[in-house]
Amino acid sequence: MGRDVEVPETVVRRLPIYVRALAQLEAEGIKTISSLELGRFIGVTAAQIRKDLSYFGEFGKQGRGYEVSHLLREVRRILGLTRVWPMVVVGAGRLGQAIASYDGFKPRGFEVVAVFDNDPAKIGQPVGHLVVRDVDELPAIVRALGVKIGIVAVPAAEAQKVANLMVDAGIRAVLNYAPTALHVPEGIRLEDVDPVAILQSMTYYLVSSGDHDPVVAEPSGAAAAGGDSAPEL
Amino acid sequence: MGRDVEVPETVVRRLPIYVRALAQLEAEGIKTISSLELGRFIGVTAAQIRKDLSYFGEFGKQGRGYEVSHLLREVRRILGLTRVWPMVVVGAGRLGQAIASYDGFKPRGFEVVAVFDNDPAKIGQPVGHLVVRDVDELPAIVRALGVKIGIVAVPAAEAQKVANLMVDAGIRAVLNYAPTALHVPEGIRLEDVDPVAILQSMTYYLVSSGDHDPVVAEPSGAAAAGGDSAPEL
Repeated sequence: MGRDVEVPETVVRRLPIYVRALAQLEAEGIKTISSLELGRFIGVTAAQIRKDLSYFGEFGKQGRGYEVSHLLREVRRILGLTRVWPMVVVGAGRLGQAIASYDGFKPRGFEVVAVFDNDPAKIGQPVGHLVVRDVDELPAIVRALGVKIGIVAVPAAEAQKVANLMVDAGIRAVLNYAPTALHVPEGIRLEDVDPVAILQSMTYYLVSSGDHDPVVAEPSGAAAAGGDSAPEL
Repeated sequence: MGRDVEVPETVVRRLPIYVRALAQLEAEGIKTISSLELGRFIGVTAAQIRKDLSYFGEFGKQGRGYEVSHLLREVRRILGLTRVWPMVVVGAGRLGQAIASYDGFKPRGFEVVAVFDNDPAKIGQPVGHLVVRDVDELPAIVRALGVKIGIVAVPAAEAQKVANLMVDAGIRAVLNYAPTALHVPEGIRLEDVDPVAILQSMTYYLVSSGDHDPVVAEPSGAAAAGGDSAPEL
């Protein structure tokens, strides 16, 4: 499988973008694509595409580019996406509910199989096609179903405790939605989803390009429901 | 402001992580921190911390480390977070509603000031403290309120059209939740939020470490509400 050399993490992080792009191209009926076109589509250079893929073998044909379906299948295989990965979610608040009900997981290789909370008012309530379970049941369910992926959707103050519980139960990859730095033992994968952090890196560029109004009042109640302070637009 | 040299994008992307960590440390009452401790907290080396911050000036004191509140204030200033940034959301489905109702924006410098959809059934409905507006009103509202940040929360097939509308209206930074590659003119910031892509890069490591069950049936209805096929646990 060409895994003699360690693949840089930045390359691994780009592979899902390739999968997304190739699936889109396949759906549009495109059969072959050059590294130049694929790079333009994704926003990287042709050289980067060729270099990234070279870690895993030979996928293009001299002067013919890549066969879209074949490359898609191969990259999916490399990423372990030839199966559906069961996941558990801890936290059945608004965010946890949105995650558990999200219909974009299944087509891309994932499925939420259980949602947990410690709030008696939430336990037993339906969420998507599941019911919220007591977080005390997590270890048994994770082991019984062989779940390796856990999603943390609790407030920041409870997130580390939940991550510990997951890891102790056998979870090997943690996706953390809580806006706090979690710590996991070596060998456990941990990734944060923090849209506000992304926004904060974008404002750097808005500010440094002078691309903002120098005098801006703090927005308050604009377009608010029923607020009579809403400006006339 | 020490901006004579171009700051690498990877550094800019780390700054919000510093903000998050420093805010957490400040809330815990910690007054000073060494680059070693801060690095350990965030998951980077002390050298990386010092190098990152050196782009913007001198923040530490010889042998005394960083003053938490001061460094937090400075990094916030660098990122343009001394004000609240108004944002518009297009798409009032489950995701758009969750975004519009999310209470984690305001404390970190952002506020959703309008939510749009093109579905007559959604227009006029309340969402958080706002009402859903007709997407046709977007240009006028973006201009009137001087909004520079737009969030795309529509299905993939409509996302490019929405991004174009935003950019034409004066939006300078687009946060895209649709799982598709968008294209924006040069000078416009574009970032994707794609949790599934993050999951897909984690499974690479689960597979390559042999960290999964070799024979796993596709999960189906496990822990499902009322499903009598749910396994006894």
